[in-house]
Amino acid sequence: MSESDLLQRLVEALRCLPGVGPKSAQRMVFHLLEHDRDAGRYLGQVMLDAMERIGHCRVCRTLTEREICSICASASRDASLLCVVEQPSDITAIEQATDYRGRYFVLGGRLSPLDGVGPEELGLETLRERLHGGEVREAILAISPTVEGTATAHYISDLAAGSRVSLTRIAHGVPLGGELEFVDGGTLAHAFAGRHGL
Amino acid sequence: MSESDLLQRLVEALRCLPGVGPKSAQRMVFHLLEHDRDAGRYLGQVMLDAMERIGHCRVCRTLTEREICSICASASRDASLLCVVEQPSDITAIEQATDYRGRYFVLGGRLSPLDGVGPEELGLETLRERLHGGEVREAILAISPTVEGTATAHYISDLAAGSRVSLTRIAHGVPLGGELEFVDGGTLAHAFAGRHGL
Repeated sequence: MSESDLLQRLVEALRCLPGVGPKSAQRMVFHLLEHDRDAGRYLGQVMLDAMERIGHCRVCRTLTEREICSICASASRDASLLCVVEQPSDITAIEQATDYRGRYFVLGGRLSPLDGVGPEELGLETLRERLHGGEVREAILAISPTVEGTATAHYISDLAAGSRVSLTRIAHGVPLGGELEFVDGGTLAHAFAGRHGL
Repeated sequence: MSESDLLQRLVEALRCLPGVGPKSAQRMVFHLLEHDRDAGRYLGQVMLDAMERIGHCRVCRTLTEREICSICASASRDASLLCVVEQPSDITAIEQATDYRGRYFVLGGRLSPLDGVGPEELGLETLRERLHGGEVREAILAISPTVEGTATAHYISDLAAGSRVSLTRIAHGVPLGGELEFVDGGTLAHAFAGRHGL
């Protein structure tokens, strides 16, 4: 091998990134070293900073470097709406695609007792307090319609019992522009079962 | 935006990597923060180290953290063979695919006066000294057959004039297993012009 140990270590280290195989890791390393060391230095520094300083919002559990994330801290968001999502990345997707102006709660996963993911790991006690706190009027469950996701949604609807929160779940079915023949069977069956009057 | 500033800075910083767009950068960041902070920390540290400490081999100009790279320093490589390549990554490709056991010289590009790449940028004076040093018996040009690559090859053959080095150039033509109908016209024309007796 022609590479120095450090060069090879950097190629290996880049493979922790999802979607990066040996060839592309090597291309990245040569590109940075030959053409863009400043960008590499900046990336290394920001990476270290981010791994050290980014934690979870005390209120909604999303990823943030602050104690309370910008959405939870914002006075202009509607505190009577609470959208429950699985991952911080779901917030980004919803913010980019919709005009939702309420707040969020991030579970960080789905109930899966066999994998050791129980109510505590998902912060469901915090969510229960929030639902019973009196501020939330509607809680929108934006949880994926898998078996575990559905179990999680049921658990949350039990949590909400006795509060005045109205629980809703985002619609699941055939995507817009989706050709029926290319939609998977589960989705199509779900869309049929969930048909509604015109 | 729901992201903290630092999180967004990390997404942007990752886009310096070739082949990484906004979506995949975001996926990388969420993956590291939620599932693999140790790998992220290690990557950041190795990245900083590599950008600081990796330089060019004093003999062959490839990337290495040492003064002289492992191939140039190895006593078991044949010093009478010298392969001239454009990029350090070409060495990796040749090492992996062939049983070449000689040494290398890395130009770091091709002659391109309009882009400010002249003989000095490519270390051609060093190469001239090497060719006339008496140790090299055959110099193999593994330079891509573009207009600039061909000009560079010609320049090197001028450099070698008066030395006892025999210059060769790797074969260019239709790739093994390449269907003629899918090979680009330039390659096919080159392969025709370069036909040889059976």
